[in-house]
Amino acid sequence: MGRNQLISTTTTLPEIQAGIEAVEKLMRTQADDYNGDLKSALSLLLSSGGKRIRPRIILLLGRILKANEDTLITLASAIELLHTATLVHDDLIDGALLRRGVATLNSKWSAAATVLTGDFIFASAAYLAAKTNSIEVMKVFSTTLMTIVNGEVNQLFNSRCNTSKSDYYKRIYAKTASLFEAATHTTSILSPVSDLDRDRMRRFGYELGMAFQIVDDVLDYSGDQAVVGKPVGGDLRQGLVTLPMLYFIESNPQNEVVQSLLQGKCIEDDQAVDNVIQAILTSSAIEHSLNEAEQFAKRALDLIADLPASPYKDELVYLTETSIVRKN
Amino acid sequence: MGRNQLISTTTTLPEIQAGIEAVEKLMRTQADDYNGDLKSALSLLLSSGGKRIRPRIILLLGRILKANEDTLITLASAIELLHTATLVHDDLIDGALLRRGVATLNSKWSAAATVLTGDFIFASAAYLAAKTNSIEVMKVFSTTLMTIVNGEVNQLFNSRCNTSKSDYYKRIYAKTASLFEAATHTTSILSPVSDLDRDRMRRFGYELGMAFQIVDDVLDYSGDQAVVGKPVGGDLRQGLVTLPMLYFIESNPQNEVVQSLLQGKCIEDDQAVDNVIQAILTSSAIEHSLNEAEQFAKRALDLIADLPASPYKDELVYLTETSIVRKN
Repeated sequence: MGRNQLISTTTTLPEIQAGIEAVEKLMRTQADDYNGDLKSALSLLLSSGGKRIRPRIILLLGRILKANEDTLITLASAIELLHTATLVHDDLIDGALLRRGVATLNSKWSAAATVLTGDFIFASAAYLAAKTNSIEVMKVFSTTLMTIVNGEVNQLFNSRCNTSKSDYYKRIYAKTASLFEAATHTTSILSPVSDLDRDRMRRFGYELGMAFQIVDDVLDYSGDQAVVGKPVGGDLRQGLVTLPMLYFIESNPQNEVVQSLLQGKCIEDDQAVDNVIQAILTSSAIEHSLNEAEQFAKRALDLIADLPASPYKDELVYLTETSIVRKN
Repeated sequence: MGRNQLISTTTTLPEIQAGIEAVEKLMRTQADDYNGDLKSALSLLLSSGGKRIRPRIILLLGRILKANEDTLITLASAIELLHTATLVHDDLIDGALLRRGVATLNSKWSAAATVLTGDFIFASAAYLAAKTNSIEVMKVFSTTLMTIVNGEVNQLFNSRCNTSKSDYYKRIYAKTASLFEAATHTTSILSPVSDLDRDRMRRFGYELGMAFQIVDDVLDYSGDQAVVGKPVGGDLRQGLVTLPMLYFIESNPQNEVVQSLLQGKCIEDDQAVDNVIQAILTSSAIEHSLNEAEQFAKRALDLIADLPASPYKDELVYLTETSIVRKN
């Protein structure tokens, strides 16, 4: 898996592209019978894009596992709306004004309207999850939301300037891998496969999600600001220690800023943060982090290796491989 | 139905009281495996009390309709947690510092922590709703959340100083009656009764909920501040026109403040608001509002009149009757 090419994760299969469009439409119509401002807000949020990676995974995996296509579209919409709702509340909590280079709802609306829009999207997501007619899906869906929110609470109270590696893994599980895991697990629940296969597919989502978040955390340092849509080093500036910094700490225990962090002190000086970011970029920390993402991705690939050959499998493999070479 | 006695809605049936205690316990344990601060917040929120009227209705109605007791406790916990979550976000949106005379989470925690605690409670509520193992329950549960949140968005954007009576009824449906309706509807869904009976029970919840909210709105004017736990006339001070004011407008079209409101202008002068509140209290507006609540309660009683006689039915009738004579 090379890392130097710019690869699009956009699907090349017309039936998957049609599925993604159906998901977009289903998500967008959830507020049709409700307040006009809510409808506009949902439309704005969905038009700001995103890679729709979770819906793609669901549609591809579901076709491989022979799930019903309409149910997959409903599930993919539910999972993507859950993701969207958490982003809305997240941006409010972080006070973020931009996401993917586009103004957040939070930067335009009052906090009250933003809280309620997020709540409405949670409710729509739950409604669509219920429409899959599977109680097991509903249980996975709701416990995943508990995990995600619990992770955000941990991050709020306990993770600032936290240099524990185990805290980091728990954090990225809660933040990203839990929903990837839920996406592949619920897809398999809705497919005519064994419990053993369901567990494998659940783990596939876990490994892929972990890889995906590590790459996100690397891009926070090494990404092109214009492509990522966020200021470089933003995590560290907010006191969030991610994998590149953790590797940097391991190799540079004597660094002044590292010393201070290990003593539990956040870096408050902007110049010191800039210096550390530059030091990380010229160190092996980025390479080590990407190696680790690659390990997660390889385990993910192993878990789907036995699935029957098909264009959908080829694309799911491709999506997994490219998840660690993306630029945004 | 007299109105001058102080009546407690606390149950006198030991099995219902035991059920309520089981509900309290189930709700409280939802955060046990999660962040300690989240656990404390949930515990704090639940200890600040509330009448637990929705759980009582569910436990009583469910026993009358012969639903499984454990399922009823799960359902009652789900519905009460949904209610609790909406209150948490509501208090944040209103900037309320007190609820039932007790400090709100919002007054102690940051907005971020309050948003997330509400989200966590939504997720727990959804999880418990899924544990009833009924997809129909999940659908009612999630559409009710959509209705409640949509009502809050309407209130935020369109209801300030709105003197339309139809807007008022839509508002109190979204705010209160929708969840009462969901409580009785889901109870009947989990009971071995006909679709026709389910529809009657759904409507029973609707009528009772409408009566309940009108009385709440009356208490906002006429209630004893120490008992209600909120400043008197708070709704009007926030630009919220409720039934007593709507009746006052009908009988006093020439009143200066009424004129101003009818022209779409909010009352900004505190002294003018105080004067209107006093005028409402000495007018027939309170009596007219309570008469209307009584009409809703009577329709509710008609809808349960045919249920078989039992101590549970007696108590459900009593709860419905007393819902319009309460002091808080």
